[in-house]
Amino acid sequence: SRELFVLTYGALVAQLCKDYEKDEDINTCLDQMGYGIGVRLIDDFLARSAVKKCHSYSETTDMIAQVAFKMYLGVTPSVSCNSSAGNEFSLILDENPLVDFVEELPAERASICYCNILCGVIRGALEMVHLAAEVTFLQDRLKGDAVTEIGITFLRKAEERKHKRN
Amino acid sequence: SRELFVLTYGALVAQLCKDYEKDEDINTCLDQMGYGIGVRLIDDFLARSAVKKCHSYSETTDMIAQVAFKMYLGVTPSVSCNSSAGNEFSLILDENPLVDFVEELPAERASICYCNILCGVIRGALEMVHLAAEVTFLQDRLKGDAVTEIGITFLRKAEERKHKRN
Repeated sequence: SRELFVLTYGALVAQLCKDYEKDEDINTCLDQMGYGIGVRLIDDFLARSAVKKCHSYSETTDMIAQVAFKMYLGVTPSVSCNSSAGNEFSLILDENPLVDFVEELPAERASICYCNILCGVIRGALEMVHLAAEVTFLQDRLKGDAVTEIGITFLRKAEERKHKRN
Repeated sequence: SRELFVLTYGALVAQLCKDYEKDEDINTCLDQMGYGIGVRLIDDFLARSAVKKCHSYSETTDMIAQVAFKMYLGVTPSVSCNSSAGNEFSLILDENPLVDFVEELPAERASICYCNILCGVIRGALEMVHLAAEVTFLQDRLKGDAVTEIGITFLRKAEERKHKRN
């Protein structure tokens, strides 16, 4: 059951709002917390999902969307590829369970990436399987966007990886 | 899947350790956060569990152990009654999923009730069904006790309630 988690996450964000004046610092803190979580969560994920090694960024992103999000948040984002270089992807969430109890961001906290912990989790978990990536929110329904979109940019070009492998 | 929740809870406690010098203040803060969560969680619990009205403190405590703990934490504590007045109970946990990733409390934080948020959640939820209670940790495996034990003391004697009803 997710509700206790979602409410506890809300308490965490509320505590950070007390601790930090700048929204940016809250976002950084959530991202760093998430990173630490991702680094630890990856073992659990690999053990329980029994997924095989991915051979492309596209396959890795699908795995995050279809297996990891489903397992930990109970939702499956859709995936889109955003670059011809094949290293930029988006996870698009129609529903975001982490904001179930949040109606809207308070006006004085309009720049918070409320779910920024997720970016950190993804970044940390990817790093543990030797994939450096930048992960950020590109759209957020809490900020009035039509969907919630998490952008993943793998930092080494797909070609370089292939080259290196050969 | 509980792991993301358990790790996020760990990040919350770690943040409070940064924020507060005294363990006591951390415990109070966790209890208060939990209270706020319990107050909101009760609606979800009543809706999804479809439990009927309880007619005794003993029945209420069984419901917390067998339905609520199972639903939100995936474990079922055993229940014992601690007073002849029938208003003091214990929930006894052999396993506590919230501490899955915690090996031991650091020496300088030996007085933390790591899971104190649970006491607050129970207290808040009970208050919303008009049951005043004190909820505290009586034993904690993280502190070397054999089991983890949460004490619930209902603040109105069972007899008074009956009397009032008549």
